[in-house]
Amino acid sequence: MHKPSQIITLTTDFGTSDVYVGVMKGVILNINPNAKIVDITHSITPQNIREAAFTINAAYRFFPKGTIHVIVVDPGVGSDRQAIVFHTDTSYFVCPNNGVLSYLLQDNESEKKPLAEAVVIQNPDYLLPRVCNTFHGRDIFAPVAAHLSLGITPDRIGQPKTDLVRLTIPALEITENTLTGEIINVDSFGNLITNISENVLTSFLLSSTSEMEGIRELDRHVEVVDFEISVGTTSINRLNSTYTESQAGTLLAIISSFGLVEIAVNMGNASSYLGLKIGDKVMVHKKV
Amino acid sequence: MHKPSQIITLTTDFGTSDVYVGVMKGVILNINPNAKIVDITHSITPQNIREAAFTINAAYRFFPKGTIHVIVVDPGVGSDRQAIVFHTDTSYFVCPNNGVLSYLLQDNESEKKPLAEAVVIQNPDYLLPRVCNTFHGRDIFAPVAAHLSLGITPDRIGQPKTDLVRLTIPALEITENTLTGEIINVDSFGNLITNISENVLTSFLLSSTSEMEGIRELDRHVEVVDFEISVGTTSINRLNSTYTESQAGTLLAIISSFGLVEIAVNMGNASSYLGLKIGDKVMVHKKV
Amino acid sequence: MHKPSQIITLTTDFGTSDVYVGVMKGVILNINPNAKIVDITHSITPQNIREAAFTINAAYRFFPKGTIHVIVVDPGVGSDRQAIVFHTDTSYFVCPNNGVLSYLLQDNESEKKPLAEAVVIQNPDYLLPRVCNTFHGRDIFAPVAAHLSLGITPDRIGQPKTDLVRLTIPALEITENTLTGEIINVDSFGNLITNISENVLTSFLLSSTSEMEGIRELDRHVEVVDFEISVGTTSINRLNSTYTESQAGTLLAIISSFGLVEIAVNMGNASSYLGLKIGDKVMVHKKV
Repeated sequence: MHKPSQIITLTTDFGTSDVYVGVMKGVILNINPNAKIVDITHSITPQNIREAAFTINAAYRFFPKGTIHVIVVDPGVGSDRQAIVFHTDTSYFVCPNNGVLSYLLQDNESEKKPLAEAVVIQNPDYLLPRVCNTFHGRDIFAPVAAHLSLGITPDRIGQPKTDLVRLTIPALEITENTLTGEIINVDSFGNLITNISENVLTSFLLSSTSEMEGIRELDRHVEVVDFEISVGTTSINRLNSTYTESQAGTLLAIISSFGLVEIAVNMGNASSYLGLKIGDKVMVHKKV
Repeated sequence: MHKPSQIITLTTDFGTSDVYVGVMKGVILNINPNAKIVDITHSITPQNIREAAFTINAAYRFFPKGTIHVIVVDPGVGSDRQAIVFHTDTSYFVCPNNGVLSYLLQDNESEKKPLAEAVVIQNPDYLLPRVCNTFHGRDIFAPVAAHLSLGITPDRIGQPKTDLVRLTIPALEITENTLTGEIINVDSFGNLITNISENVLTSFLLSSTSEMEGIRELDRHVEVVDFEISVGTTSINRLNSTYTESQAGTLLAIISSFGLVEIAVNMGNASSYLGLKIGDKVMVHKKV
Repeated sequence: MHKPSQIITLTTDFGTSDVYVGVMKGVILNINPNAKIVDITHSITPQNIREAAFTINAAYRFFPKGTIHVIVVDPGVGSDRQAIVFHTDTSYFVCPNNGVLSYLLQDNESEKKPLAEAVVIQNPDYLLPRVCNTFHGRDIFAPVAAHLSLGITPDRIGQPKTDLVRLTIPALEITENTLTGEIINVDSFGNLITNISENVLTSFLLSSTSEMEGIRELDRHVEVVDFEISVGTTSINRLNSTYTESQAGTLLAIISSFGLVEIAVNMGNASSYLGLKIGDKVMVHKKV
């Protein structure tokens, strides 16, 4: 288990027009003036736990070992939902126990990552003196993160917790010739990011062809396998390796920078082009 | 009087899509490369001094002692309105003398806070060499804050100033059975924050009941006193202690994280639900 | 050539609602935990290279010597457009070679600034191990900037490059009695910033009048020369020295904080008032 660093990231649905984020930063700096605070985003759709879960899982891998990630998308604030510190061998997460770690836990398991543990936040020494029922970002999550960054170990913050709350994450459906996934994120360019990873797509497409054909990288054109990606009422029959190899305004599919199949429009907005949103299905059909 | 820290906060109406905020940060770092700059918000409604006044008053208390707060909401830039440095025993404020400190001054007085002083910014040594008439954030406020963070004392920046400009802040109206306040802030969740503090509400509700009933904390249910909060064309007859104790979509009243009565909708947006805005009245009626 | 500092600025069209900016910061801090990252803006209109070019040129001058500026507005990501490090004697720029430095190069030349050089980013030692085709901000620009901040010199990053890509920037048209420029930026207040600099305007207006009249500063009223500024279907016949010397709601012209003629409305929004946008013409007529 890596020692916590001074770097604390923030992921919230607080927006940046109110004082809430600034106040959390004040609380952190009041406890640890040397903390280095990095905003991941404060524009999670209000109370959208799934979106936060996608975001933190996509972001945390790129931060230094020991980084402390605070995630406050917390519709249950003040209820009996628990507040937790979760840590892997490389990263710390301070958040409500409401599913915001769902994608991360799923990926950790499928990647067989080593030891990960959680504690329930209980010790009042590491909270603000008065905890109100409407702003745990300020009163619980920010001060706990700041104390972690000063070297307080999770075991001093609370008792171990094993079964963390998880969102029901729709599984991929795979039949012989069809792989069905869904859109799990729409970014601000309107790119539609699916839950179909490059690895899964490769296995699916190659399963009925000889591996001897030597296809190694799907971010090259996969022309050796004939397939079609159905999105909305239209379809795409190849994978781009760059946006720009399609004409401006053209719908395309590509492996996103996070290793997932992405539907995009070169120099355009696929979300408004197709009228699709999170949860909508994306199907890959193998032509035989 | 606490020594200035290296922490400088920024509250402006500049938005984050232009270069203005970045340029202010460049100017600060050019003078003090070790300054630690924290954004409170740059999304104050353009030229809305009252909103800025609410924001800085809500935020500054949570920052470390010695923090320097820069507030630039400045419709009078270039006119003869003065630029000031105001300081309390714990905090520094660098801003136009246009009322942005109104709530803070009012609260300081009602809380009988110790010594607070202001100076008018005059000494050109601590400004950019050329001060233009349209961007004092860059030419005056940022460099003064940076010099303060290096240990320059306010008395070197300019002459003392006593009567600071204040906004006309509507007072609460209290009759025997009715307490009338107003909405002073709408946050990005659509929560309506009023100018009725928990303390005032407690005193008002208890004034005609026996204190022997032992009501101490209003963030518990105040069912012992029968009351009604009128907002727009509807009313609420209890105070929640958490958002979640109401059903999703339900209008509720709660003590906000800043100790003020707040009108909210669990998992929803009270501002659009009620069609109310800053300045609209909120009345508490005591039922006798 | 000034040594790089630890300060790294970011200018992108990524918005702040996705993880992209946070991920770039993670990558930078992973390479140099002491880097000091400053956002200039992430709200460049998607893929608008000209807007990015205006922004970085307006901002960089205010940062400390040695600052490293990362600009990622990159519609050609993954194509054969090159990635470059450009440096002047005071500043470093890490960006695609797609024209984002156009205004800066133009100004450098007209100001006869000393030595400036560029290299093409080639050395994989300073990139992420796997460079994907859709997110060079993460895989190329962020790591190169971080390595520069650790003291890696540009010559170790790649081979010199001389002819940088430039946008076609419309020149001013100057006849005896008319100066024609255009709107090159609309800020978030709706102010219309033109490409007519204070210097050019002064020379133009004074060219047919005696310099003996002693006009030195155009940010005073230039009433000695009779002129008219045409914008859209209306015109303005004087230069303000402050916004507030016009009544609220009044259209005015002023020298902006960047030394360029700006069309504004006191306490209002000139862009919506006039219905004008980037590229629209602004003409100054000298009355004879």
